[in-house]
Amino acid sequence: MKPVKVGLCGLGTVGSGTINVLRRNMREISARAGTEIIIEQIGARRDNSACDTSSENVVRDIFEVARNPDVDIVIELIGGTTVAKELVELAIDNGKHVVTANKAMIAEFGNELFARAEAKGVTIAYEAAVAGGIPIIKALREGLAANKIEWLAGIINGTGNFILTEMKDKGRDFADVLKEAQDLGYAEADPTFDVEGIDAAHKLVILASIAFGMPLQFDKIFTEGISTIEPQDLTYAQELGYRIKHLGIARQSDQGVELRVHPTLIPEKRLIANVDGVMNAVLVKGDAVGPTLYYGPGAGAEPTASAVVADLVDVVRSFTAAQENKIAHLGFASDALTEFPIVPMSDVETAYYLRMTAEDRPGTLNQVTKVLSDTGISIEAVIQKEPTSGESAVSLILLTSRALEKQLLAAIESIEALDEIEGQVAHIRVESLG
Amino acid sequence: MKPVKVGLCGLGTVGSGTINVLRRNMREISARAGTEIIIEQIGARRDNSACDTSSENVVRDIFEVARNPDVDIVIELIGGTTVAKELVELAIDNGKHVVTANKAMIAEFGNELFARAEAKGVTIAYEAAVAGGIPIIKALREGLAANKIEWLAGIINGTGNFILTEMKDKGRDFADVLKEAQDLGYAEADPTFDVEGIDAAHKLVILASIAFGMPLQFDKIFTEGISTIEPQDLTYAQELGYRIKHLGIARQSDQGVELRVHPTLIPEKRLIANVDGVMNAVLVKGDAVGPTLYYGPGAGAEPTASAVVADLVDVVRSFTAAQENKIAHLGFASDALTEFPIVPMSDVETAYYLRMTAEDRPGTLNQVTKVLSDTGISIEAVIQKEPTSGESAVSLILLTSRALEKQLLAAIESIEALDEIEGQVAHIRVESLG
Repeated sequence: MKPVKVGLCGLGTVGSGTINVLRRNMREISARAGTEIIIEQIGARRDNSACDTSSENVVRDIFEVARNPDVDIVIELIGGTTVAKELVELAIDNGKHVVTANKAMIAEFGNELFARAEAKGVTIAYEAAVAGGIPIIKALREGLAANKIEWLAGIINGTGNFILTEMKDKGRDFADVLKEAQDLGYAEADPTFDVEGIDAAHKLVILASIAFGMPLQFDKIFTEGISTIEPQDLTYAQELGYRIKHLGIARQSDQGVELRVHPTLIPEKRLIANVDGVMNAVLVKGDAVGPTLYYGPGAGAEPTASAVVADLVDVVRSFTAAQENKIAHLGFASDALTEFPIVPMSDVETAYYLRMTAEDRPGTLNQVTKVLSDTGISIEAVIQKEPTSGESAVSLILLTSRALEKQLLAAIESIEALDEIEGQVAHIRVESLG
Repeated sequence: MKPVKVGLCGLGTVGSGTINVLRRNMREISARAGTEIIIEQIGARRDNSACDTSSENVVRDIFEVARNPDVDIVIELIGGTTVAKELVELAIDNGKHVVTANKAMIAEFGNELFARAEAKGVTIAYEAAVAGGIPIIKALREGLAANKIEWLAGIINGTGNFILTEMKDKGRDFADVLKEAQDLGYAEADPTFDVEGIDAAHKLVILASIAFGMPLQFDKIFTEGISTIEPQDLTYAQELGYRIKHLGIARQSDQGVELRVHPTLIPEKRLIANVDGVMNAVLVKGDAVGPTLYYGPGAGAEPTASAVVADLVDVVRSFTAAQENKIAHLGFASDALTEFPIVPMSDVETAYYLRMTAEDRPGTLNQVTKVLSDTGISIEAVIQKEPTSGESAVSLILLTSRALEKQLLAAIESIEALDEIEGQVAHIRVESLG
């Protein structure tokens, strides 16, 4: 088979990592792909000292790469949803396959890009868009192809997990750890994407679409960030036998599909509860296989490059397959996708962790439990500490039974109206993931 | 695309599970495969009440299935290496693709079967042969295709892991838990395959061959079982911050490839140290991606069926690909496999846990540490308990630095010759898996 020629656009962290991995592991990669993979052209506005490109064909106009008749596969590592999307469209229109690590572009424009690619008979591969080096797209789309997926839950933002881990292990507060994450280069100067769950939502919508066989519906995801989590919540969670993780959760139910990103208490005995630092993990529940978990680095130059190059090899292997035998972009053939309704958050059922500040006087706990009980919510566990000296207020922590979000919010409103309760009631959802 | 017709041979646990999964999830499976998958014929010597086959075309002669001109893919779920191998050979010779869950057959006869299949232009798919429902073959062969694999370590026998978990959690001894595992149906009447590591060795040789790109070399694996582990070892390991797991380990070094199955102390902070009960997990270290872990059920009807059906879908997708674009059976193109030397166990370096019974008198510990120090081995941790009343002997537990196995065994011989030491010194290897 003649060598495959790739054009790589974007010479940032992942771009230079990809070139370095392709060069270093050329023997293994060629032996696995069944052919040599050659970097035909690089499109980059500037050089990157992490990777010597002096002997490469580098052009400053990335669109030139998508028009280069010698290029078989365009690797898009620009990021963002404007120039990157134009580049991918041009590559497709020129009959080139595309490999991308761009989660925002796939999550927001995947439906139209996949349709465009299918019309041209080319493939868009995007393993690197979710959970970095973990081959989770492949596992869901191929490895678990026998299963009805019931639900999945993932730690799919390393920055957020690093922050929560530091808060738990060292009792530091959110703003302090975020500052460190920014200094370490884990978090962007504008950390909103990471800590408010938008990055996780991009990844979740991709995973959910493959799991359930539905078009991408990014705008319908419920997203709640971690900036309101306090160190004491992590401590109380541990006392109760739980860990707090920022999870992306997708679940199929009779009402449709739940799509939500929010901080979540998980029993500490679950493996995923013990995934710390910048690592990612996705737990998937299939009806035949049961629970499987996939763990690894969710970001970084070479972990992401690992997924980009695996996609390259996959695309090469699909070259001679008839269109009908190619793996559909979302796993299910495009005419077999189902537009499942997305369940509104108010109708989602979970258990809850509640933390409130209460006056230390007889009957307070009773007042609170009465409100919950009147709403049909029972209490699974309580922590009430003695007030510190000189204080008359105490922290009251409750774990509730499973309830609809709207029931719980109504109960919280009534609790906050009680004379004995000061300020707001903090609530965090609880999932057993069993 | 016209429906794909499969012939399924063997109607035991996995066979009936496969039929049940194919029937129940036909919509999802067809949508993912891009075509309908039909059970054309079943070959089974007897029926199985777990699965109604009254409306199926069942034959008692399994070889009839391999000769049936209407069958595209033969699923071999007979087990063993005699009849199963003949069946697979006949299927290949008749130009049929094969899907199998048979680890012994692949580990022992994979090289010749793969060559036979390649000569005929057909595929043998065997995801179900290793770690049940976990798509680990796919992850290693495709998902991590960009990487030089440095090492992998797996809990790949659920029975052994169940036994060690019960011993740890309940302080029960080996024989007692083994009996329970047999009653529960986890362990065979002859438990040798599970507890002596032969089953794990079958799986390890397959994983290692794919990881490093080498022919299968089952006869060269070092294997040590778990029957000599005592409940006190599990307790002492915990005191030292470790767990004991029965691991299959493959590692590439300058001397060649290490292939070994043995009980291993792992730091408790590693995720894999916390994989309990019958669950399996494989930790893989790639040079680009870093560590990734794959976790799930390693056995059982539907978890194994999940892998069998995923292979079916994969085989269907490869139908129209040119031979050069098909995934090689061991990941690397067959002419790119390397016959790496297997490192003899005496030249393998690990740290060690040592447990011995010593007389409780001054200077004993010093005598032991002197022997080790003279051999160039240093001590990382010690546990010495006070003797129980009326006893003059104490248990002495040491964690050593890394040393070659032959050095360690020489040191043990000298320690056992000391007057202060009673009986034999138990030793268990320690791996940091960092």
